[in-house]
Amino acid sequence: MTEPHRWTMKATRHYDYEIVETTDLFDPDNPQLRRLPDDGGEGTGEGVGARLVVMDETVEEIYGRRIRHYFARNAVSVEYLTLPGGDAHKTFEQVLRVASRLTAIGTNRRGTPPIAIGGGVVQDVVGMAASLYRRGIPYVRVPTTLLCQIDGSVSAKTGVNYEGCRNRLGTFAPPPLTLIDRGLIASVPERQVRSGLGEALKMALIKDAELFALLEEYGPTLVAERLQDSGPGTRALQPGRTVMHRAIAGMAEELCKNLWETDLKRIVDYGHTFSPVVEMTARPELCHGEVVAMDCVFSAVLAHHRGRLPLRDLERIVNTVRRIGLEPSHPMFGDPAVMRQALTDTMRHRDNHQYLTLLTGIGRTEFVDDVTAAELDEAARVMAVLDRDPHTPLADACASRPVGMAA
Amino acid sequence: MTEPHRWTMKATRHYDYEIVETTDLFDPDNPQLRRLPDDGGEGTGEGVGARLVVMDETVEEIYGRRIRHYFARNAVSVEYLTLPGGDAHKTFEQVLRVASRLTAIGTNRRGTPPIAIGGGVVQDVVGMAASLYRRGIPYVRVPTTLLCQIDGSVSAKTGVNYEGCRNRLGTFAPPPLTLIDRGLIASVPERQVRSGLGEALKMALIKDAELFALLEEYGPTLVAERLQDSGPGTRALQPGRTVMHRAIAGMAEELCKNLWETDLKRIVDYGHTFSPVVEMTARPELCHGEVVAMDCVFSAVLAHHRGRLPLRDLERIVNTVRRIGLEPSHPMFGDPAVMRQALTDTMRHRDNHQYLTLLTGIGRTEFVDDVTAAELDEAARVMAVLDRDPHTPLADACASRPVGMAA
Repeated sequence: MTEPHRWTMKATRHYDYEIVETTDLFDPDNPQLRRLPDDGGEGTGEGVGARLVVMDETVEEIYGRRIRHYFARNAVSVEYLTLPGGDAHKTFEQVLRVASRLTAIGTNRRGTPPIAIGGGVVQDVVGMAASLYRRGIPYVRVPTTLLCQIDGSVSAKTGVNYEGCRNRLGTFAPPPLTLIDRGLIASVPERQVRSGLGEALKMALIKDAELFALLEEYGPTLVAERLQDSGPGTRALQPGRTVMHRAIAGMAEELCKNLWETDLKRIVDYGHTFSPVVEMTARPELCHGEVVAMDCVFSAVLAHHRGRLPLRDLERIVNTVRRIGLEPSHPMFGDPAVMRQALTDTMRHRDNHQYLTLLTGIGRTEFVDDVTAAELDEAARVMAVLDRDPHTPLADACASRPVGMAA
Repeated sequence: MTEPHRWTMKATRHYDYEIVETTDLFDPDNPQLRRLPDDGGEGTGEGVGARLVVMDETVEEIYGRRIRHYFARNAVSVEYLTLPGGDAHKTFEQVLRVASRLTAIGTNRRGTPPIAIGGGVVQDVVGMAASLYRRGIPYVRVPTTLLCQIDGSVSAKTGVNYEGCRNRLGTFAPPPLTLIDRGLIASVPERQVRSGLGEALKMALIKDAELFALLEEYGPTLVAERLQDSGPGTRALQPGRTVMHRAIAGMAEELCKNLWETDLKRIVDYGHTFSPVVEMTARPELCHGEVVAMDCVFSAVLAHHRGRLPLRDLERIVNTVRRIGLEPSHPMFGDPAVMRQALTDTMRHRDNHQYLTLLTGIGRTEFVDDVTAAELDEAARVMAVLDRDPHTPLADACASRPVGMAA
């Protein structure tokens, strides 16, 4: 008998995408919003059909008229679709709605990329639809919330929640072009600005002590001015602009190394280990950056109890969380059973490893894989104190831990 | 004012996957079916949970007991899901069914890859579910039809039909391991064997004259023996084995160059330009390879009328289609309006270009982008004759075309 055959397939896929800062995005004289992302030399496809512009309801309400005026003035052939925002609408049904519209207007494979203008939900939904329609077409991303501008803007991820699991279904499919206009943040509610700064805080903690110092010093001002640097104390120094740039640059640097998460040890997952279950189930609902900040604190408490993070740093972290206007804790973070389950769930996503990022200082991290249930319980206990008695000094909240707890 | 920033992201994703030929796949002593595909050095994940085994109803009926026995004897922790086959079930609802089961059994990100045993529909559905679950997990593909073994086995594509459009939603996500057991074809209905040979014929026409010669000579035998080379005339020469190997090798060679379809000019799209609409709408339903063979003939008529393909080659092609037991034509291919619409639809997928592969001989191709409506009409007329009066000599069917028709 002849031997069985074996065929080996090797292929490489290159991704090249850019995040472009601009101002006055909806000014008809600004060409950014109507330009086609680079199409790899396959012809621009201009004039071959309408492009779909998807907005969320908030964007429609605030900017809908200006956006329509923009495309009309520039005689760009577009059609509009407005989707509901909010995590409850991050569903596959919404993805199908977008796909149906793409089919209805006859969107091509390359030449007529849709444009998504909105917060994280609309970006995730449109991104997923674009990544599935004809097995993937390009699109243009215009994030309109702070969280989305500093975090989602760089990311390659799309996703929807499914059966109560956050981002259970999704793809890696970065759009070739993302447009950032910090001016859009001026119309964002304060709570969302705080939430966005929660993600900036994460980036600061894992790799950027200077960014942390800015958040620590300017926290309340950043929120009040919505990063517009409009006050007398910020106009010259521009902390809002710097915070945004450093957060994006840090994210870009980390993601470029490991965009497909081939390596499951990711420092950018800091703040994202214990928080997903809280984000999916806490009532009243919490924003993404709000639970991320709590997870940052929880993880910092873990690190402190291991003797890896000085109390002084933990105090600065909690203090900065509060200066941003975020809560450092929540009853769910104070519940040991919830925290144990949260780690178990997340470990499935890390192939049964903890790969937990812990701080060894502000801007410095290490990976650990041996956190015990007792350590989780103890950190939850501290979080419960922080939640119930915000005025308890951290030193006291942390002091009572049993000796030898990690054994 | 300071200048706007711009961040450029560059990332490369490497894919490495193999198609392994084996025999007696469900023999408990054959380790192939239970082995984990290479996991990139991130730990094997063995023993971390159950793996999902998805079969279609046909596989369940014929091999269900043996497959269960296989995993039981080898003490592999698995759970089973049986899906309906047939194109009507190539839907997103079925993808969600698979995703739900993956969630229910707690499938990890890498360590517990599901196994899909079945024809094209189950492969597309499980492949798409795996590519979306946690933004993509590995899986193992066991194609059980000839079409799937020689075509799907190498492909990186997954997909479902949506709103009457074939593969409207899908992903590029090759599984790390595909197992081919030609012995499984022994239990496949003759019609499906013929359909599979339709894809082999396409491969032969675009790049492999030797493969064409085998199909031409052994067509009826290949069908009757279901490629098992079990007869006295085939046992030594093994045309079934050679046909399968050459078809897979040809596909592998073509796909490796352009797996992500960055280049929209693809000779492997031969037979796939006019056929999708027929496959989606012809009643009674036609199999994929059946419509592909008709499209091959239609495109060959186009090439002949352009003076690019000799009549003798066209005759050999139609004759070989018939020897395989396939029809060269169908009323829809004889309808000029259908063919015009088919090309328009497909051009959307090629960014408004025809990028039509035409033959210049058997195993030789060229791309054209200037086929006129009149040429389509004339080819449809020939197809109508082929469909109505199969005994009309091709020379006669083709002869009556108006002079200067392409002008």
